[in-house]
Amino acid sequence: MKRFAVVGHLAATGGTFSLNDLPGSAGRMDILCRCVNSSLFLSHDLRRDVECYLILRGEPDPDKTLLFSGGAVRYLSPDERSSAALIRKALSIPCGDEFRESTPGVYVRRGGLSRLLADIPFSVLDEAGEDIRDAPVLPDACLLSDHLNLTPEEEEMLEGRDRYSVGPFSLHADHTITILLNEIDRRESGWI
Amino acid sequence: MKRFAVVGHLAATGGTFSLNDLPGSAGRMDILCRCVNSSLFLSHDLRRDVECYLILRGEPDPDKTLLFSGGAVRYLSPDERSSAALIRKALSIPCGDEFRESTPGVYVRRGGLSRLLADIPFSVLDEAGEDIRDAPVLPDACLLSDHLNLTPEEEEMLEGRDRYSVGPFSLHADHTITILLNEIDRRESGWI
Repeated sequence: MKRFAVVGHLAATGGTFSLNDLPGSAGRMDILCRCVNSSLFLSHDLRRDVECYLILRGEPDPDKTLLFSGGAVRYLSPDERSSAALIRKALSIPCGDEFRESTPGVYVRRGGLSRLLADIPFSVLDEAGEDIRDAPVLPDACLLSDHLNLTPEEEEMLEGRDRYSVGPFSLHADHTITILLNEIDRRESGWI
Repeated sequence: MKRFAVVGHLAATGGTFSLNDLPGSAGRMDILCRCVNSSLFLSHDLRRDVECYLILRGEPDPDKTLLFSGGAVRYLSPDERSSAALIRKALSIPCGDEFRESTPGVYVRRGGLSRLLADIPFSVLDEAGEDIRDAPVLPDACLLSDHLNLTPEEEEMLEGRDRYSVGPFSLHADHTITILLNEIDRRESGWI
């Protein structure tokens, strides 16, 4: 299983945001939607061995964590509005301490980064990390930030973890996921 | 200058499509919007040396070609709805045989693939092509298709052109662009 987690620092945590304003009132939800896309989609197929976690830290009810499971998700199309609609649905059901399924393959629970790190040993994708092409073993679980840097508190939680970089420039989170998955695909398929 | 061209076989050619239904009535315009994003965006910056051409082949007035110039474009945000709004604006102005600017850095003209190939020597991104990592020189201009295969007529126009592949699996067009740009970035920056 490969896992990605993306921190959405302003991302809405209520189920009433407008699908017509994902960058604005939904708190750059468009970024998280594109990360769901890049984590899970192949051409005309899904990556069934990938999970994508979204850590939503915006108003009105932070923190919440969503999980999109490539092996179980249904009703997901590649466009931003499609994943946003599933996110909105997940945010509209009662949220407890354990993951609860809102639509097939989409789950929501209360809690954010510290809880997720207790469950899964995430590495960090970071411009200053080791080049993924030089890494003898690639990480199974990687965490990224949205358009904002990780906060000092988040960085403290991540201290000492392995860090990896995908290239010489700072890229959007979804582009970074695409490039890492390409490196994984190549190694798993014997292309390198 | 690096150039990408994407063929949108069903993509709307009139300026009245709904921004709320890019995959449906706009003819998978969401794919083309994501290709504009992956061609032009760095984190908090634009790739000013990239041009993205969209060949729109859907109703009601095919073919039209749009150009997004990374060096000149304004009012473009990364979300699909933002590029879709600029596309719709471009499709709503009178369309002639030469490129005409609709908003800063976005241009539209009548005509499709054969006209574009007469101007620019595009290679093809194709699962069956040469691995980009093995290519001594990377192409300056690459053409991709949307969710549909190139038609026999399009394939005939492209016969004999160099073909490149980015990895072992068939990927969405925007993911393919991201991976090729990463390879270009690495070579230009001396990361390889």
